[in-house]
Amino acid sequence: MTAAGRRIVCFGELLLRLTAPGRELLLQSPRLDVVIGGAEANVAVGLASLGHATAMVSRVPANALGEAAIGYLRRYGVDASAVTTGPGRMGLYFLSPGAGLRASEIVYDREASSFAQSTAGDFDWDRLLEGAALFHISGITPALGPQSAEMAIAAAEAAAARGVPISFDGNYRAQLWQRWPSDPRTILTQLVGKADILFGNHRDISLLLGAEFSGDGEGRRREASEAAFAAFPRLRLIASTARHVVDADTHRIAARIDSREGAAQTEEVAVSGIVDRIGGGDAFAAGILHGVQSGRDLDWTVRAGLAVTALKHSLPGDASLFAPRDIDAFLAGELDVRR
Amino acid sequence: MTAAGRRIVCFGELLLRLTAPGRELLLQSPRLDVVIGGAEANVAVGLASLGHATAMVSRVPANALGEAAIGYLRRYGVDASAVTTGPGRMGLYFLSPGAGLRASEIVYDREASSFAQSTAGDFDWDRLLEGAALFHISGITPALGPQSAEMAIAAAEAAAARGVPISFDGNYRAQLWQRWPSDPRTILTQLVGKADILFGNHRDISLLLGAEFSGDGEGRRREASEAAFAAFPRLRLIASTARHVVDADTHRIAARIDSREGAAQTEEVAVSGIVDRIGGGDAFAAGILHGVQSGRDLDWTVRAGLAVTALKHSLPGDASLFAPRDIDAFLAGELDVRR
Amino acid sequence: MTAAGRRIVCFGELLLRLTAPGRELLLQSPRLDVVIGGAEANVAVGLASLGHATAMVSRVPANALGEAAIGYLRRYGVDASAVTTGPGRMGLYFLSPGAGLRASEIVYDREASSFAQSTAGDFDWDRLLEGAALFHISGITPALGPQSAEMAIAAAEAAAARGVPISFDGNYRAQLWQRWPSDPRTILTQLVGKADILFGNHRDISLLLGAEFSGDGEGRRREASEAAFAAFPRLRLIASTARHVVDADTHRIAARIDSREGAAQTEEVAVSGIVDRIGGGDAFAAGILHGVQSGRDLDWTVRAGLAVTALKHSLPGDASLFAPRDIDAFLAGELDVRR
Amino acid sequence: MTAAGRRIVCFGELLLRLTAPGRELLLQSPRLDVVIGGAEANVAVGLASLGHATAMVSRVPANALGEAAIGYLRRYGVDASAVTTGPGRMGLYFLSPGAGLRASEIVYDREASSFAQSTAGDFDWDRLLEGAALFHISGITPALGPQSAEMAIAAAEAAAARGVPISFDGNYRAQLWQRWPSDPRTILTQLVGKADILFGNHRDISLLLGAEFSGDGEGRRREASEAAFAAFPRLRLIASTARHVVDADTHRIAARIDSREGAAQTEEVAVSGIVDRIGGGDAFAAGILHGVQSGRDLDWTVRAGLAVTALKHSLPGDASLFAPRDIDAFLAGELDVRR
Amino acid sequence: MTAAGRRIVCFGELLLRLTAPGRELLLQSPRLDVVIGGAEANVAVGLASLGHATAMVSRVPANALGEAAIGYLRRYGVDASAVTTGPGRMGLYFLSPGAGLRASEIVYDREASSFAQSTAGDFDWDRLLEGAALFHISGITPALGPQSAEMAIAAAEAAAARGVPISFDGNYRAQLWQRWPSDPRTILTQLVGKADILFGNHRDISLLLGAEFSGDGEGRRREASEAAFAAFPRLRLIASTARHVVDADTHRIAARIDSREGAAQTEEVAVSGIVDRIGGGDAFAAGILHGVQSGRDLDWTVRAGLAVTALKHSLPGDASLFAPRDIDAFLAGELDVRR
Amino acid sequence: MTAAGRRIVCFGELLLRLTAPGRELLLQSPRLDVVIGGAEANVAVGLASLGHATAMVSRVPANALGEAAIGYLRRYGVDASAVTTGPGRMGLYFLSPGAGLRASEIVYDREASSFAQSTAGDFDWDRLLEGAALFHISGITPALGPQSAEMAIAAAEAAAARGVPISFDGNYRAQLWQRWPSDPRTILTQLVGKADILFGNHRDISLLLGAEFSGDGEGRRREASEAAFAAFPRLRLIASTARHVVDADTHRIAARIDSREGAAQTEEVAVSGIVDRIGGGDAFAAGILHGVQSGRDLDWTVRAGLAVTALKHSLPGDASLFAPRDIDAFLAGELDVRR
Repeated sequence: MTAAGRRIVCFGELLLRLTAPGRELLLQSPRLDVVIGGAEANVAVGLASLGHATAMVSRVPANALGEAAIGYLRRYGVDASAVTTGPGRMGLYFLSPGAGLRASEIVYDREASSFAQSTAGDFDWDRLLEGAALFHISGITPALGPQSAEMAIAAAEAAAARGVPISFDGNYRAQLWQRWPSDPRTILTQLVGKADILFGNHRDISLLLGAEFSGDGEGRRREASEAAFAAFPRLRLIASTARHVVDADTHRIAARIDSREGAAQTEEVAVSGIVDRIGGGDAFAAGILHGVQSGRDLDWTVRAGLAVTALKHSLPGDASLFAPRDIDAFLAGELDVRR
Repeated sequence: MTAAGRRIVCFGELLLRLTAPGRELLLQSPRLDVVIGGAEANVAVGLASLGHATAMVSRVPANALGEAAIGYLRRYGVDASAVTTGPGRMGLYFLSPGAGLRASEIVYDREASSFAQSTAGDFDWDRLLEGAALFHISGITPALGPQSAEMAIAAAEAAAARGVPISFDGNYRAQLWQRWPSDPRTILTQLVGKADILFGNHRDISLLLGAEFSGDGEGRRREASEAAFAAFPRLRLIASTARHVVDADTHRIAARIDSREGAAQTEEVAVSGIVDRIGGGDAFAAGILHGVQSGRDLDWTVRAGLAVTALKHSLPGDASLFAPRDIDAFLAGELDVRR
Repeated sequence: MTAAGRRIVCFGELLLRLTAPGRELLLQSPRLDVVIGGAEANVAVGLASLGHATAMVSRVPANALGEAAIGYLRRYGVDASAVTTGPGRMGLYFLSPGAGLRASEIVYDREASSFAQSTAGDFDWDRLLEGAALFHISGITPALGPQSAEMAIAAAEAAAARGVPISFDGNYRAQLWQRWPSDPRTILTQLVGKADILFGNHRDISLLLGAEFSGDGEGRRREASEAAFAAFPRLRLIASTARHVVDADTHRIAARIDSREGAAQTEEVAVSGIVDRIGGGDAFAAGILHGVQSGRDLDWTVRAGLAVTALKHSLPGDASLFAPRDIDAFLAGELDVRR
Repeated sequence: MTAAGRRIVCFGELLLRLTAPGRELLLQSPRLDVVIGGAEANVAVGLASLGHATAMVSRVPANALGEAAIGYLRRYGVDASAVTTGPGRMGLYFLSPGAGLRASEIVYDREASSFAQSTAGDFDWDRLLEGAALFHISGITPALGPQSAEMAIAAAEAAAARGVPISFDGNYRAQLWQRWPSDPRTILTQLVGKADILFGNHRDISLLLGAEFSGDGEGRRREASEAAFAAFPRLRLIASTARHVVDADTHRIAARIDSREGAAQTEEVAVSGIVDRIGGGDAFAAGILHGVQSGRDLDWTVRAGLAVTALKHSLPGDASLFAPRDIDAFLAGELDVRR
Repeated sequence: MTAAGRRIVCFGELLLRLTAPGRELLLQSPRLDVVIGGAEANVAVGLASLGHATAMVSRVPANALGEAAIGYLRRYGVDASAVTTGPGRMGLYFLSPGAGLRASEIVYDREASSFAQSTAGDFDWDRLLEGAALFHISGITPALGPQSAEMAIAAAEAAAARGVPISFDGNYRAQLWQRWPSDPRTILTQLVGKADILFGNHRDISLLLGAEFSGDGEGRRREASEAAFAAFPRLRLIASTARHVVDADTHRIAARIDSREGAAQTEEVAVSGIVDRIGGGDAFAAGILHGVQSGRDLDWTVRAGLAVTALKHSLPGDASLFAPRDIDAFLAGELDVRR
Repeated sequence: MTAAGRRIVCFGELLLRLTAPGRELLLQSPRLDVVIGGAEANVAVGLASLGHATAMVSRVPANALGEAAIGYLRRYGVDASAVTTGPGRMGLYFLSPGAGLRASEIVYDREASSFAQSTAGDFDWDRLLEGAALFHISGITPALGPQSAEMAIAAAEAAAARGVPISFDGNYRAQLWQRWPSDPRTILTQLVGKADILFGNHRDISLLLGAEFSGDGEGRRREASEAAFAAFPRLRLIASTARHVVDADTHRIAARIDSREGAAQTEEVAVSGIVDRIGGGDAFAAGILHGVQSGRDLDWTVRAGLAVTALKHSLPGDASLFAPRDIDAFLAGELDVRR
């Protein structure tokens, strides 16, 4: 619970998630369960739960919804003092959780949010990044629109200028980029070009480099990573998961991390009895960054990333709320009741 | 349950209401109860429950939220075949229900809704008003923005041109008009000028006519009504309630209706143990229109209006779901368990 | 919690009550809260909670619903070993709890229940009444149909023959008697003729005797009681409440008990913030019988009856679950938090 | 959402299902979740959700429960104007949903329902079948009693007389037939003799023809179908599923359809993480009829039938609420979050 | 939401409150709603909600319950970095909320809590009080046992020694003092002797001084305050409420504050429709301290105290969550829906 | 439901279990579901559900929590007249139910409970064991502390002295024994030395005898059982399960029973879709004792034990609530809906 060391700064939109209860379709019965989400906030909460000092930078409306988002971050130990309020709405999304052979379905309702209406000038990065150990951002922010793209690039530039290492999670969402006349490759290339750590697989790297990678599984991933290391000289680590979706309740997941010198790869684990699949990627990022920031080696780090994402699938809500002892229990294979 | 006669057509925005449960503040606990609302839809549902053929004209997004709104209207017997889908979001509002000396509080989130993005050309009033006995509209639609105001006026003009009587509920919401450079008096005057039935009190009429009405209670209301009858030659009936808010759980309400020839006025009733105050005005309109469309006299009609609004305060949700026998029971003073 | 002395035997139908939650209309949202009820079972549970040894005699179907009814009685300390199973269904009733000026509404669904299909021969009263201190029955059982009427009379005769005092609660329900070609006066007269204690007011006595009682309030009640004492020589006590229904949330209630020698009458108390009005009369009977069986005087007894019925209105469910200390607290006027 | 073409008319009983929440036994905790069911209503809702004009013909009591059933049909787009009210109760059933190695368990409570008390004369089939594209009925209605059997046959005769194709789902429930001195084979033979489409497997056909079919799997099913085609000259299509119950959470299901000329058969799919198994057969019927009414070939049709029944197992409630795009997603194997 | 100025430090036990839902008795149905409480924590949360920098000093066990208490404080903006973990359990209390004429009832379960097992040496007051504007403590801590009494006195001495003003809320709970051979007067006198602000009425002062105060209402309160000012030279302000309990749903409350120079007294307000009466006194303290720390005069301050306590009664949970604008709305009499 | 024959007496602590709903972590949302537990009470309820006369001997506090525990036993047909009240608290435990690869987690809160504060002298075993067919106790009671160990041994001695057969379930919980300077081997040996039936596997026997058993699976278990039979001459039967935890949702379980003359062993069954794993061992004991007390052979008995434990995993709560027909259905492989 105690957060140690210099803080990790996460930047992105906070969202309210409204979920149909009991595996129902949206509004099949007249109730919604509410959690707070947002890819970068999920990473912040995941890292805070793992004992890291973290801070969120974002913008919400000055109403009960924005206050709830701020209160949520604080509850889980994230410094929310840099979540400011501004004009615009709270971004929302509605979720029908899937089951069996029925996929989960999301209805986004994030237009005109306070965050999407923010501009680069709204954030004083010199102050916000002071004493930062790491800056985490994702590919969702630049996808929100031209001024958000500009804002994301400005933030990354500020971090790079101050020597704060950057972690970037691709989180490519085609339908966000398609809502405006965007050039994702150009924009994302600027961001990845400043990043030290990239969360993304061979498909993300293909998109960035305009190249295809042949072969299967691990070989193709290494090939893609090497191409990325070649293209982006600052890049130090690339982490990704390979997910096989058996059905909505069971996925098989393996994790991999590549450095310039080597790589570590886990066995595939069967994640069954899935309770909540949303935020699985953010939990993976939190687990990997926990290993990196704790100075662990690639092998432990990739297994910790797998542990946190696997555990996340068992937990309602967007974020992973696990402590280091939960990673230990996972790695030790403790599966029966802990008394 | 059987709807008789020619149908009543209601036009306005459908909204999803998300309510904190158990008298909590919004998101104090992570759950929201959902009902469908919208002032004109509430009137439609109220009238359908009272046995009238009603139809709703509106526009919602083509997603699970819009479908839920359509399904809700259908469930309660409103013809929803003229609720079309279009671009834009579902209008929402969030409610913290009050209690005791704490007032209820609403956070609106209706920007950029499918309805607010509609234009006059989206509705084929010749077809929609065919066979209509009455057309009901409120002052909320023109307050949504210039194109909505234009759309409301076009609808009223179409009804007037076809000889369909118009019912207009003022529903003045200052904060909606203030969001754009509006001239509510000019716009509302055009709508009231075409109306046969007006829901509004002396303050609404003051706003329309730019005149103040002196005196207290009934006298002032009669004075205002006579001024309105003078100013708007089509106007046949003016109905309103006088509400004294003791606290969030207890209101005292009286009802009044004025015709050119006379008036009827109820005693004040104490509405205590309030369960849900939202939609009280819409329920009143439904009760009054029920009397009018059923050919009842002013006295019965105003008591029916009071009955439906008083009963509405006892019911969760936005709309009154009462049948004619519920009005009868209310007027007979039946208050103990009906077995 | 300890039950002392010889046991009180209650005979009647067990019902499942299915209640709309949150002051909604039935099935407004897709959920029902379930409690067990039945007038005589409510008295049994009320008396058991007050520390009396009680036993229920009834019949339910051999399925999960019947088992739930039996388990409920046992949970609250009622001996349910004489609740047998037999053909037929579980009797149900559906409740929309009222609020403010909207009355509660009940939909009965008790046709063809296991109890209503029972006959006099199904109950071995010699065994069932062995060691009984009191036998309690109500006017609902004989109203269920001719064979139920016969069964009720046979039970009362058995108790009278064994010298077990009989408590009879009128519980007149016109709509039950009207479902078959019944003569309630003849049937009820046979039952009251065997009773020692009658729960009923001047209207119930009017029905029994075919006489009207003039005057207001206490005088009229005494006049009726004296007529009943004259007509029914076994009768020892008559108890009743006078209820003024302000609205669904507030009733004003006074209680009265008459013996041949005298009477006791309480002040009227305002029972506001009503949570559940069902079972109020059964709670009153439990409170009165508690006083009688504990050997208290008329004055304490009638105040205890008022206490238990007033407290019942504050409790969800059909039955009063109060201990003697709750009566004491009520009589002492303790209304703020008991820590 | 828009229903096109001539309408499909479904005839059968509407039931209220009361379900224990959270995989509990009935009344383990004091709450029941309520949905509307009934085999033929499930088909109607399933087809309406798939975009077909559908109408339900049935009878319910004139109380809140009957109104809820009607409102439910309307909500999901089924024309309920031919659901009339009459004497009798609402049919109910109580469900303990199974889990793991514990089977689901149903307690029926449908005696003396309004529908079961209806007679052939209560339905004006000339009017009700006007403009009908298809008439759907099941083997449950004739099993309810002699007058229901007569009523079912009269309905089928009316449809046949008007040239409306008939779809018949066997739905053989031994325990319903056993409650009266019935001859299911004679009755069902009359109904199947008028049907164009039969839902039933080799066991259903054995029952009809009094013949056994040897062999395993597909061969036996084809043999049975050919025998049925021989016996019932109007029969055009026979569809069925083969279900292997691994445990309450996992079934393996394959689907098959036979015409006189050929057949189509799917692979077996593992339906795991089952949320609600009730209505799986009705969902299959809806999927098959969707293919048939849309003019698709046998192969697509049988895969659509499998899709809708497999998806149904993932959804709470009795009916399938899926749109054509959900079938497409299923057939495309889309299993991860749809954003 | 932003907290300004030097912080207010609150010291006391954190408790988990487990409440029966829906006005039920404890465990009438198998569910409990959970909130965090504790008199001093309630003041901290109330002050943080009103915009003050606040910090809590306490001790909880290192388990999920203790973490939840810490997360709760953080969510509502209280600095919880001085809530440490230690041996012992989480203090609990179980609440049956009252209704109508049934009083609320509390079952305490706080034995052997981590806080009660703490000793004076566990808290480094020099560090904890650095930069503190005010130190708030209540009479509950010294009542927990001899080492808690010593710990409370040590804390007060440290604050006094550093010149940090002390606010002391009597919160006299006889049943806590009676569990050990305590001398409450001697202990409380030491604490009040160091206090600048005292929350307590004439009965509390009687207890402290061993004197009786004659007369009624305001006169008696002034007399008691003057005696307290005489006995305790550091005391600057004495605040209290006078509460008349009509029933569990309606209290009438007036507030008063005395300084050495004068006093302010409010009218009595009817607080009806009470949702949750627990924490009413702590909310009053928060409101008064808000006025004091904001430099408002006695009159505004006492009305703010009344506002916050009255509003608290309308809100589920132990703490007041109101912002300054809520006080303004209360003082302005805004009771109808705020849109 | 009818309990036959002489009664089975169970002795141990009653606990309240407070469970996070919906697979959440504890207090992730502010609600807890409550059930009653305790290893020996679970056996008592399991046996009563299977039709055996059972009685519980225990001690609880005289408050609403203790009353709820007593009411729970009564509801499920256990004679609770020997559950007395005494000083101390109600023992609690908090459960986060696991899911997928996240293990369930328990926070115990049973310090200073009424039961743990009881001493041998509090129970009059001569009276309590009169007419007992069996006495069941577990290894949890002696682990609670030295006076509890003494109390357990005294109880076993009393049973042995009266010739009442003893069933002993090892239930070894290291963390309970470690809280005091205990010697579990010495204490448990005294208890097992008086037992006729032992629930425990080779690890439990190793602990008792200080010996290791080599080999795998069945051979090792037989070897251990023979060693136990040699060491404990009264011992007649040893039963145990072998559990392989695949993940929190799926376990594979086999059961075994050894007598001096022979053994029976089941196949391993896959228990998937686990709803509630707690109490699985107690359910196994209930199933085995059901076979033993019903005079069934080893083979049927061990399969009944497996049936009851497998079914328990599908049911929320601590106890198995299954009737003999549920065992029959399990053994017959009935897995689809029972109508």
